[in-house]
Amino acid sequence: MPTTKHILLFGAGKSATVLIDYLGKICLQKQWICTIADADEQLLKMKTASMPQLQSQVIQIEAEEQRRSLINAADVVISMLPPALHILVAKDCLILRKHLLTASYIDPAIRALEKEIEAAGLLFLGEMGLDPGIDHMSAMKLIHSIQSKGGEIDSFKSHCGGLVAPESDTNPWHYKISWNPRNIVTAGKAGAIYKLNNSIKEVPYEQIFNACELVTIDGIGELAFYPNRDSLSYIPLSGLDTAQTFIRTTLRYPAFCAGWQKIIEAKLTDDATMIDTDHLSYGRFLREQLAAHHVQLDTSKLEQQFEMLGLYNNHSINKGMQSAAAILQDIIEEQWELEHHDKDLIVMLHEIDYTINNNKHGIKSSLIVKGDDSLHTAMAKTVGLPLGIAATLLLENKIDLSGLHIPTIPAIYLPVLNELANEGIRFEEVEVQA
Amino acid sequence: MPTTKHILLFGAGKSATVLIDYLGKICLQKQWICTIADADEQLLKMKTASMPQLQSQVIQIEAEEQRRSLINAADVVISMLPPALHILVAKDCLILRKHLLTASYIDPAIRALEKEIEAAGLLFLGEMGLDPGIDHMSAMKLIHSIQSKGGEIDSFKSHCGGLVAPESDTNPWHYKISWNPRNIVTAGKAGAIYKLNNSIKEVPYEQIFNACELVTIDGIGELAFYPNRDSLSYIPLSGLDTAQTFIRTTLRYPAFCAGWQKIIEAKLTDDATMIDTDHLSYGRFLREQLAAHHVQLDTSKLEQQFEMLGLYNNHSINKGMQSAAAILQDIIEEQWELEHHDKDLIVMLHEIDYTINNNKHGIKSSLIVKGDDSLHTAMAKTVGLPLGIAATLLLENKIDLSGLHIPTIPAIYLPVLNELANEGIRFEEVEVQA
Repeated sequence: MPTTKHILLFGAGKSATVLIDYLGKICLQKQWICTIADADEQLLKMKTASMPQLQSQVIQIEAEEQRRSLINAADVVISMLPPALHILVAKDCLILRKHLLTASYIDPAIRALEKEIEAAGLLFLGEMGLDPGIDHMSAMKLIHSIQSKGGEIDSFKSHCGGLVAPESDTNPWHYKISWNPRNIVTAGKAGAIYKLNNSIKEVPYEQIFNACELVTIDGIGELAFYPNRDSLSYIPLSGLDTAQTFIRTTLRYPAFCAGWQKIIEAKLTDDATMIDTDHLSYGRFLREQLAAHHVQLDTSKLEQQFEMLGLYNNHSINKGMQSAAAILQDIIEEQWELEHHDKDLIVMLHEIDYTINNNKHGIKSSLIVKGDDSLHTAMAKTVGLPLGIAATLLLENKIDLSGLHIPTIPAIYLPVLNELANEGIRFEEVEVQA
Repeated sequence: MPTTKHILLFGAGKSATVLIDYLGKICLQKQWICTIADADEQLLKMKTASMPQLQSQVIQIEAEEQRRSLINAADVVISMLPPALHILVAKDCLILRKHLLTASYIDPAIRALEKEIEAAGLLFLGEMGLDPGIDHMSAMKLIHSIQSKGGEIDSFKSHCGGLVAPESDTNPWHYKISWNPRNIVTAGKAGAIYKLNNSIKEVPYEQIFNACELVTIDGIGELAFYPNRDSLSYIPLSGLDTAQTFIRTTLRYPAFCAGWQKIIEAKLTDDATMIDTDHLSYGRFLREQLAAHHVQLDTSKLEQQFEMLGLYNNHSINKGMQSAAAILQDIIEEQWELEHHDKDLIVMLHEIDYTINNNKHGIKSSLIVKGDDSLHTAMAKTVGLPLGIAATLLLENKIDLSGLHIPTIPAIYLPVLNELANEGIRFEEVEVQA
């Protein structure tokens, strides 16, 4: 008699909403047990309210005994906790012999467990979300398929952006926040490095948003992209050492890049500029930063964008000493909030040029996912579903693999991409002139 | 033929909601013109939506021409702008010969205009809100009435607090935010000084919330109070130099004081402690601050209070370098938010002991005002209505006064308190054992 399978999810936050719905569906379909554990009782109740089949458990993740007894009852554990907390769960999974899935980058603490994971015959699968996650899976599937036909890849460009859907795009920045706002403020700070026509290009922070190029996405129109931090580190991972061009980028609507460039020039993303905000209005803060750094708002679009941020807002900030970056973050969290009925939008596009028998080919593969509302976001779908699907496949023995992995191997990406397509997350491929 | 009277209000923010409703009523009743001016078009629309009789005007307050043309069309101007901006309006009012009312303290810039105001025969009336405002009016009325009977005041204690109504009191701090959150974080920082039994008492910041005393309010129960910054400066204003005791305080529910004392001990209100919040969870921030300053949460009530602030919250703060005070402010703005249907509560209590012909007397005069919801707060009623009433009385020639004033004189407080009573803002007086 087979025992009932049991999936345990730690973390019921923003990115987990769609995953929790998926687990609710799976545990009805397959008569499995799914447990959702989080520190926040209200959040747990809200997220599981319509699904009595789900178990929910209030937990303090640092409480070892409680954590271990939960993990011990499960067959596979999904951690959507803040990345720094995965290691607590990972060590227990190793001791208690449970598989572990996360959507996060594999950090050195987890990397250090690699041999033990392998020896225990367990699968620890990281980077199993959108970016990293779906980007790896879809790109590697394309690359492997080109290579299997004898193709050699000349150019690889991969773009991804979390945007606002056109019907919910109501502000002059054409942007609303569907993920971590701190990452929006610090985007590009480390500069960028990538390979273009066999030469290494470095772009300093001050130039990143100035040099946005355009790409057209069917059904969306023109989008701008700026290069991600370090594309080069992805070259060995993809096995594309001989490609002349290799770049990973972030997509935004074009006007965003123009405005954000001015924000950077006015040092509004600066963590070191400390400002006494008591009795200082938002408007004066913005006007003084612009003036101090000789930044001109020389188009009416830029004027509109900064007006939205509070260029003429008389209200005082009143939070004592604050960094410019923290003030800006407070402003955008309020002004660019995804309202309840707003839909966000995920756009991913791979552009690959390759050669077979001296013939040049080109292919574009794109994914467009729209959110349902501010809870069931495209972000939550694309980050959560790969995890839920992988957990299910694992418990059905459809992924037979052990060790520490990310989803760059066919044994993972093929069945997961198949299931994602069943859930409506489907890439469109078109041949293009190379 | 009399010309139509015209009231102009600058500022449609939080505290102006009830005032705008009052002006809407007045301009229908009296067939006057009322204009509401604010930088925020959405806000203006929202606040005046149900009152087509009101004029509304989007304005950038720094735009001199637009500001002056608005002021020029009015007979009396009310400024609910941030205090630093009153001076812009005041100077125009002086040039254009218009009366000006505000709910703010009279700052040195306005004080410098005193002689010109007097010479122009204008009335500039400041401190015409709740505190300062209704506190002055009600206290002075009591004091003058006692003095007019030949009484000599021995002890004056005046308490005021913006609280949450019992029916909306749903958290272990028994507090929700109905006004400027920065002022909550910095409350008491300058220490306090007052007069008790003819000796001057100074209380350092570290002891202010430790020494809360209790007072019973009919219908509310026991409240705690802590001394306001500088009670002594109010002694000459009230003419109570011979009183042995003179103190002004802030009211809170008792559990608030106990919890806030721990917050201060853990340096959570500190502006100078800068913390790197990237990848730092709210829980770790709180636990580390408590541990670093050896603060014990030694009752279950304190545990509950800090749990509400996020003692076990795993989410990362992620705002770069932040002061402890700014992090705390973000936490309480979220956790202590006045929800839409919540009612706030204003409690004011004057306790006066006095002697007539060697006989000791005591009187307690108290005001309790409850909000209707998170827009029509008790705070907005008590801050806004005195201004609306004073403007109306002024245009009806029922206040005949010129110069720079605050409402400590009978010519102002008598008619205004009368009208406030008609609006339901009414003090209850009881004789007590002295």
